[in-house]
Amino acid sequence: MINSKMKELGLHSSAIRELFEYGKIRKALIGEKNVFDFSIGNPSVATPEIVDEVLMDLIKNTDSVSLHGYTSASGDADVKKAIVNYLNNKYIADLDEKYLYMTCGAAASLTISLNAIISENDEVIVLAPYFPEYKVFIEKANGKVIIVNPQKETMLPDLDCLYNSINENTKAIIINSPNNPTGIVYDKNLIQKIADILNKKQIEYNHDIYLISDEPYRELIYGDIDYPFVSNYYDNSIICYSFSKSLSLPGERIGYIVLSKKMNDVENVFYAICGAGRSLGFVCAPSLFQKLVARCLGHTSDLTIYEENRNILYNELKSYGYEIIKPDGAFYLFVKALGDDSIKFSEYAKKYELLLVPSDSFGYSGFVRISYCVSKEQIVNSLPQFKKLIENFSREVKHE
Amino acid sequence: MINSKMKELGLHSSAIRELFEYGKIRKALIGEKNVFDFSIGNPSVATPEIVDEVLMDLIKNTDSVSLHGYTSASGDADVKKAIVNYLNNKYIADLDEKYLYMTCGAAASLTISLNAIISENDEVIVLAPYFPEYKVFIEKANGKVIIVNPQKETMLPDLDCLYNSINENTKAIIINSPNNPTGIVYDKNLIQKIADILNKKQIEYNHDIYLISDEPYRELIYGDIDYPFVSNYYDNSIICYSFSKSLSLPGERIGYIVLSKKMNDVENVFYAICGAGRSLGFVCAPSLFQKLVARCLGHTSDLTIYEENRNILYNELKSYGYEIIKPDGAFYLFVKALGDDSIKFSEYAKKYELLLVPSDSFGYSGFVRISYCVSKEQIVNSLPQFKKLIENFSREVKHE
Repeated sequence: MINSKMKELGLHSSAIRELFEYGKIRKALIGEKNVFDFSIGNPSVATPEIVDEVLMDLIKNTDSVSLHGYTSASGDADVKKAIVNYLNNKYIADLDEKYLYMTCGAAASLTISLNAIISENDEVIVLAPYFPEYKVFIEKANGKVIIVNPQKETMLPDLDCLYNSINENTKAIIINSPNNPTGIVYDKNLIQKIADILNKKQIEYNHDIYLISDEPYRELIYGDIDYPFVSNYYDNSIICYSFSKSLSLPGERIGYIVLSKKMNDVENVFYAICGAGRSLGFVCAPSLFQKLVARCLGHTSDLTIYEENRNILYNELKSYGYEIIKPDGAFYLFVKALGDDSIKFSEYAKKYELLLVPSDSFGYSGFVRISYCVSKEQIVNSLPQFKKLIENFSREVKHE
Repeated sequence: MINSKMKELGLHSSAIRELFEYGKIRKALIGEKNVFDFSIGNPSVATPEIVDEVLMDLIKNTDSVSLHGYTSASGDADVKKAIVNYLNNKYIADLDEKYLYMTCGAAASLTISLNAIISENDEVIVLAPYFPEYKVFIEKANGKVIIVNPQKETMLPDLDCLYNSINENTKAIIINSPNNPTGIVYDKNLIQKIADILNKKQIEYNHDIYLISDEPYRELIYGDIDYPFVSNYYDNSIICYSFSKSLSLPGERIGYIVLSKKMNDVENVFYAICGAGRSLGFVCAPSLFQKLVARCLGHTSDLTIYEENRNILYNELKSYGYEIIKPDGAFYLFVKALGDDSIKFSEYAKKYELLLVPSDSFGYSGFVRISYCVSKEQIVNSLPQFKKLIENFSREVKHE
């Protein structure tokens, strides 16, 4: 009698969430410190101090009716202007605040964008391994998910395969760099190649193909890597951002969508964004946090903590013999499953109290994802377990 | 190429919003105080002091990772418990926190509920005059809107008409008390009669019919009126609430859905709620404001300010000869349009700088809605205009 698809989505939460719940039970049984939960991508680093300072200042010195009141559906005008100015400066971009829409976080950025552009049976390409909610969001918007597998050795997009997957029904492709679950950061060259493919295919099929860039990890890049801002490379770009990871505010639900102003028919695409937001039940992004983020642009949590975690874990695990995709960003390590069956391997790792997400959750098999947004202590204490695990694995598995 | 329905929804915002935008332009032209904008239902009263106090306390004394982190998708466990305890006490209800789902405000409460229960072509009944976004939300969830007109004299639901509108496709009915746009509060007797009809029809058609009760104005009731809490009257009740009006926090997007625990198949309906929230892009309700509302239960903004506005406006306008539905709640006055054509009358009222929303926006013609959530000064200064308007109307209109 109810909507059975919605029931299924509520009943079967993701494998990530299930592993996390298992971890909670296990911790209660054997003690918090004895379980090494690497399941969830939940920022573990404090918000930068400026967050508290600005929140306090806003609460003390702003009239409550205007502070907590409705903003325009697309966001507070001053906030939009501040964000666009910041982005234009930082990325030498040419954005217009008219085409920026404040959202309740990354998930909302994606659902609003997808519902704005998809008509029944349009296809949306995702690049495996991919964030599992993409499928949920695309299908709810009446789209069809087309999965493009990566190059086996590098986990980078297979561009030939991408090229061949685009057809007359292709409405969009979602990219995600820095990537969840691999930690890979797409360089300028790769973005340019994707743009070239899309441009060629737009001409071939004589319709627009949108590049949806899901960028919650944009600030989480380690080392000297330039981040290529996609609207500088491709006109039909829809940038979906969230402040969840950069400011450690995942529960507050604050982000934005910004369209390239050179997008074809940009006015109408923006109207469709507004219409989608309205019909999905997003009235405006949370007002206090809109005002907060406008005053914290360029600030981040102390991201060196994640970098240190990455370095320890990557180097140590490598030295034990694990095969790992080298991650330049986000807070994930993508590790080849011993024995190649990631679900079996994830189960096996539980014996060592290591909670690792099988990559099947990300539409690709043979790996596990390690979320290293945890305390350094957990990282360090988990190392002997990882070592034992790989030492014992082949022997024990043979005996089974 | 984009989704044309979404574009239309973004392009043609509501008549209410258009009138509000007209007001902003007009104010810039002739001065703020010379335009009497009664268009928008935006709380004009400050948040109660406890809001700032609790916000400050939470920010000062809570670890930022837990304060601003993700909560469970359905909300923080302690917050859910606090709200259910409060409701059970206040309304002598029998709710279970297991079936409460925190949301990003009233609109989200409605879209999540509708998407959870509607399958393609299910019908949802709305009682005219009704909040115009109901139609947007129902249609986006693939439902069909069935409008039931009110009794002409009282604007109360026409129960015979309701009875006859229910058929084998009816999935739900939305009620809204205190009502936008009439200000009417449904009494116990009326809720009981609606419950009786639905129970009878559930048996007749052998399927569940949900009573969705949209209650953002629940605390805005003037005088000694008992509020009948719908889950005490009808088992298949879905209560949609928002703290926007009671605490003057409309921009912060915080509310909840709570199901009657006696609902048929309640576990699965709750799963469908979770699935709908997930697929629409609501990850969790804003974390700081979840914790805030749990500590402000039972508190409200100073609502006597609205009551005073209502009393002045209702009594004065009556004395000038306007016909008005007597409002017991919310912050709206529903006034018969002079000349019976509400759109023409709304246009005419602009000559007197009075911005009144034509009731056609609410699926019913012949009235205008006056939102009296404005300053007392605006109320008092508008009175001579209302007087002139009714005095001049018949003469001028004849001359046209």
